[in-house]
Amino acid sequence: MFRDILQNIVDNTRGGVGAVLLGYDGISIDQYLKPVEGIDMQLVAVEYSNILKEIKRTAEILESGNMEEVAIKTDRYYVLIRVLNDEYFIAMTLERDCNFGKARYLLMRDASKLIEEMA
Amino acid sequence: MFRDILQNIVDNTRGGVGAVLLGYDGISIDQYLKPVEGIDMQLVAVEYSNILKEIKRTAEILESGNMEEVAIKTDRYYVLIRVLNDEYFIAMTLERDCNFGKARYLLMRDASKLIEEMA
Repeated sequence: MFRDILQNIVDNTRGGVGAVLLGYDGISIDQYLKPVEGIDMQLVAVEYSNILKEIKRTAEILESGNMEEVAIKTDRYYVLIRVLNDEYFIAMTLERDCNFGKARYLLMRDASKLIEEMA
Repeated sequence: MFRDILQNIVDNTRGGVGAVLLGYDGISIDQYLKPVEGIDMQLVAVEYSNILKEIKRTAEILESGNMEEVAIKTDRYYVLIRVLNDEYFIAMTLERDCNFGKARYLLMRDASKLIEEMA
């Protein structure tokens, strides 16, 4: 199940807050969020997909290759985005004090599992 | 000078290709690009600023804090963006085989120098 894979990634990363499996159309396929403050995951989904669409478009215009990963660091959170294919991606939110490398590794490792589940 | 600071960052990072100091309006203040294939830096500038505007807007909507850094990985390049203030940012392009950590460090270290130069 998608949710089990997402939960496994979040729970096994220090500082992990949540992860969502998303389409570029902004529709969330599945998600796992630790019981923290009330985050509107639907809003998060739509917004992330807008960012990715913009970056994807840019990568195409600049001929800078296919997008694989995007990391955004704010003064409150990290957001790590892993592209699965032309239609779907995962967006994971982490606290500033997190094991960022572990998150990158788990997302990379489990990307193929998620793609298989979708087939 | 802006260009000297940018050149210093690029030349001292293994795999560094170029760096540009940009406004959110897409206007490039200064840039340094290693003599490689013909990249249209004006186009790059406008496109990066569009991405950052989208991410900034998203961070505000999601109340996820002030943006500090964005890293984009494609199958050809890395792009590392460091926000300087509400108006300006640096975008650096690196080859896949690069010292990414050094790039992050130098951009963070020299951000304040660039801000001082602008004052």
